[in-house]
Amino acid sequence: MKTVIIGGVAGGMAAATRLRRLDETAEIVVFEAGRYVSFSNCGLPYFIGGVIEDRGKLLSHSPESFRTRFQIDVNLEHEVVSIDPAAKEVTVRNSAGDSVHAYDQLIIATGALANNPDVLQSDRTSSLRTIDDMDRIHATLNEPSTRSVVVIGGGYIGLEAAENIRRRSFTTTLVQRGPRIFPALDPEMVAALHDELIAHGVTVITGRQVRTVESATVTLDDGTELEADLIIDATGVAPASAVAENAGLRIGDSGGIWVDAQHRTSDPFIFAVGDAAEKTDAITGLPTLVALAGLANRHGRATADVIAGTTEDAVPALGTSIIGVFGITAAATGWNETRLREGNRPHRIIHIHPPSHASYYPGASPLAMKLLIDPSTDLILGAQVVGRDGVDKRIDVLSVAISAGITASALKNLELAYAPQYGSAKDPINLAGYVAENTAPGQMRTVQWHELDALSRTGSTILDVRTTEEFDKSHIPGAINIPLDEIRDRADEIPDGDVIVHCQVGQRGNTATRILAQTGHTVANLDGGYLTWHAGISQTSNSKEQS
Amino acid sequence: MKTVIIGGVAGGMAAATRLRRLDETAEIVVFEAGRYVSFSNCGLPYFIGGVIEDRGKLLSHSPESFRTRFQIDVNLEHEVVSIDPAAKEVTVRNSAGDSVHAYDQLIIATGALANNPDVLQSDRTSSLRTIDDMDRIHATLNEPSTRSVVVIGGGYIGLEAAENIRRRSFTTTLVQRGPRIFPALDPEMVAALHDELIAHGVTVITGRQVRTVESATVTLDDGTELEADLIIDATGVAPASAVAENAGLRIGDSGGIWVDAQHRTSDPFIFAVGDAAEKTDAITGLPTLVALAGLANRHGRATADVIAGTTEDAVPALGTSIIGVFGITAAATGWNETRLREGNRPHRIIHIHPPSHASYYPGASPLAMKLLIDPSTDLILGAQVVGRDGVDKRIDVLSVAISAGITASALKNLELAYAPQYGSAKDPINLAGYVAENTAPGQMRTVQWHELDALSRTGSTILDVRTTEEFDKSHIPGAINIPLDEIRDRADEIPDGDVIVHCQVGQRGNTATRILAQTGHTVANLDGGYLTWHAGISQTSNSKEQS
Repeated sequence: MKTVIIGGVAGGMAAATRLRRLDETAEIVVFEAGRYVSFSNCGLPYFIGGVIEDRGKLLSHSPESFRTRFQIDVNLEHEVVSIDPAAKEVTVRNSAGDSVHAYDQLIIATGALANNPDVLQSDRTSSLRTIDDMDRIHATLNEPSTRSVVVIGGGYIGLEAAENIRRRSFTTTLVQRGPRIFPALDPEMVAALHDELIAHGVTVITGRQVRTVESATVTLDDGTELEADLIIDATGVAPASAVAENAGLRIGDSGGIWVDAQHRTSDPFIFAVGDAAEKTDAITGLPTLVALAGLANRHGRATADVIAGTTEDAVPALGTSIIGVFGITAAATGWNETRLREGNRPHRIIHIHPPSHASYYPGASPLAMKLLIDPSTDLILGAQVVGRDGVDKRIDVLSVAISAGITASALKNLELAYAPQYGSAKDPINLAGYVAENTAPGQMRTVQWHELDALSRTGSTILDVRTTEEFDKSHIPGAINIPLDEIRDRADEIPDGDVIVHCQVGQRGNTATRILAQTGHTVANLDGGYLTWHAGISQTSNSKEQS
Repeated sequence: MKTVIIGGVAGGMAAATRLRRLDETAEIVVFEAGRYVSFSNCGLPYFIGGVIEDRGKLLSHSPESFRTRFQIDVNLEHEVVSIDPAAKEVTVRNSAGDSVHAYDQLIIATGALANNPDVLQSDRTSSLRTIDDMDRIHATLNEPSTRSVVVIGGGYIGLEAAENIRRRSFTTTLVQRGPRIFPALDPEMVAALHDELIAHGVTVITGRQVRTVESATVTLDDGTELEADLIIDATGVAPASAVAENAGLRIGDSGGIWVDAQHRTSDPFIFAVGDAAEKTDAITGLPTLVALAGLANRHGRATADVIAGTTEDAVPALGTSIIGVFGITAAATGWNETRLREGNRPHRIIHIHPPSHASYYPGASPLAMKLLIDPSTDLILGAQVVGRDGVDKRIDVLSVAISAGITASALKNLELAYAPQYGSAKDPINLAGYVAENTAPGQMRTVQWHELDALSRTGSTILDVRTTEEFDKSHIPGAINIPLDEIRDRADEIPDGDVIVHCQVGQRGNTATRILAQTGHTVANLDGGYLTWHAGISQTSNSKEQS
């Protein structure tokens, strides 16, 4: 049995090595168009920034090491230019010309290609997808004449590139076409990430596209001119599905190669994994694109299992993702509010701002957490966590909770490790469960930050229950202030009608809401308090200013 | 309705504040025997060590603050000396004498008391359970004559006390009666914690008891004399259940107050929560003691729900626990191997040693992870994680997996956040899933570190597949060495019969085992490799040397 694999990075090599461990006699041939096998592509920005100093650490494998240990035949700079499913053959092009290779099973792991929009084409432009891209950017940054860098695109690669370039003190501008960077996060959650970039000297421009690139000048669609000795194209990627499409394999509406739950394409002897292939969305069960290394690895390995005869269906994808930029970590899993609203999917929302660990122990810093919850089933549809510490832990726990079907309210029962340097007796995850329970349908009513303006204009009273000092420092326009500890005595100062209570993060607001509700007021708590409202407003006005 | 609560720390105050939020009209009275309400008891060792500098941070609440915000009547230095369930009254003693108070519902949250064994009684001995204990120890440490401290007991409090005292450069000796410190971990997992204490200058003595304490000398049962200007009694705690027992309430075999799933004692108007009360064990469903702050808080809050009429059953307890000592973090959840063997419960075991995050990104350090798995259901019965980074995240994910009934093999499918500073494309948790799957019944056979000696003596070949350099540095006695990359060519050098393969951590051993199994050898992989074997042996010999 001969298995041919197109692509020698995450998905392809995970399939190859697993197949060898399952079958010592299989013939395994890998064709990789690039010059490197199984390189650590998530490390590229960090070599540019000098965080990873040894380039060799990204290149820990070679065709020789795969041959010696796994008897896998890895061929670099060999591009598969066509597939003939009827003949079960691929045509491969390299410097010596074309050759034809038969297969019993074929695995397509061609990954994704940078969009490379025409408008960015210039000899100063590079994407950041390969070792060659990285070396080119690294060399340019080391030229004494390089002073200014413009990064186009505010997703993972754009943000990580901007951070790492700015770390080396270059003038760094990030241009994002959409209304906000890192669109996995909703606006009020992305604010801290946005502010952190600016605080570290990155110029962030959202809601703008590039009109022209000429010589060392990038001109935006509002006429802004940016000096650019180097332009990094991080505008996104598309599945590298052309060779599959040309072979007549089914391509999904997403542009990715259609596969069944066992990674099989429309041809029974051809499989596809990684960024080139579609995934199944965990929330809808429908095909989607999720370009993440973890899934590529997992599905590559699973495809080897299928070929070896021990099959099981792939688990749908949540798209759990994380990014660190300077001191801030931001992470998301499942669907965000933006997407749920676009999809008209019913949801309710909670925001909390707990300390990352016991506040009496040094080093605690506030987390911002958001949960999207199905109002009828209480299942968690998505989550976002942003902060300086403990973010990765909380998003992982929430990802597992979603996978396992743990309801939002049941988060209160999770038994998480507590010593004061790691968590709290009431961990942020438990707290989310309590808030989810308190605000379930039929319980306490809450209001979202983006609903407040309309409610205020239709006559609701905005009641700020923080201390007078906090109120005087800054407050929501039109709010009245009665500190929580005085609220029982001063309840008669509150106007009749609808009252929206808030504090700084939501907790005192909860207590005040309970008190007022039990004394006959029509009352709601502003979810996430002043902090969430302020973050949301800052992103909205930021986006408005620029459009 | 009047609710009386005995005990004003975690469980009691969680109940009191929740009850107020649920019922603005309830009368809520708390009697606390000590001088402080709702203090942060998990922070006590860190104030002694100077990590927490501001004593006030441990005392963020007062009777006044609970009165103002929650209208809760907190009475300090009021000891409840008896309960009359028939009359629904408690008798309370304070400096003014005794008084009797009626209740509609009573919550017992008396916590646990230090064992205070007679042999340790001395004016140089203090336990570390209260603010008063902390202040006394702190004052003694600040006396210029104090040089040497002996800590008796190697559980959480003993370890945290020893770390914090040693941090201030005192001569510090830890004496543990049992064969190893931190018994939540099995021997081969505790080795790193043990070594870390020694590396930081703590003298660790296991398997020894105190025979006498006289003046400034602690004498152990083998005659060892230890200088001790201060002795910290961390020999453990017992439920403070006397007042309940004297009232005729049912006491469990554990010594804790018996409660039903809604925290109700054998009297329908009396509840008990926290360290004084029994919990339900998640693995057996039987009553047990778990003295952890998180459960005390949760059950306190849940009791308020029950009193307010919105009941649900408590979730059984896993006993998830964590400790940090100098640079090492160690954590456990569920049952360990020691307990499973004592309980004759079938289990299989995996050990892995993955890097805490992508090894090409700076700061990665090895984790040691152990899973205990039910061989028939593949459910996870317990887990242990030890390392310098990312330990708390992995134990939390495993705790949630156990709670949710995620099988060991299904850990491979969890979608955990990956960027190189946080994890790996194949996260340690996913890797545990793969290894669990590879070693499931009917798949690859593995051998545990403590089985190796007997197998070697009955004729099994110990085959070390690490490099010659690794082998020459140190190896298992009697092992032969054929590096993995030479194994296909040199397989004829391996004697007939049973072969136990190992590498450093298990991964190369897995590949070698696959190769040899497919070429007709009777072969098993040493689980966790040389590292796990070495750690286990070091703890065993350590314990033998001292017994």
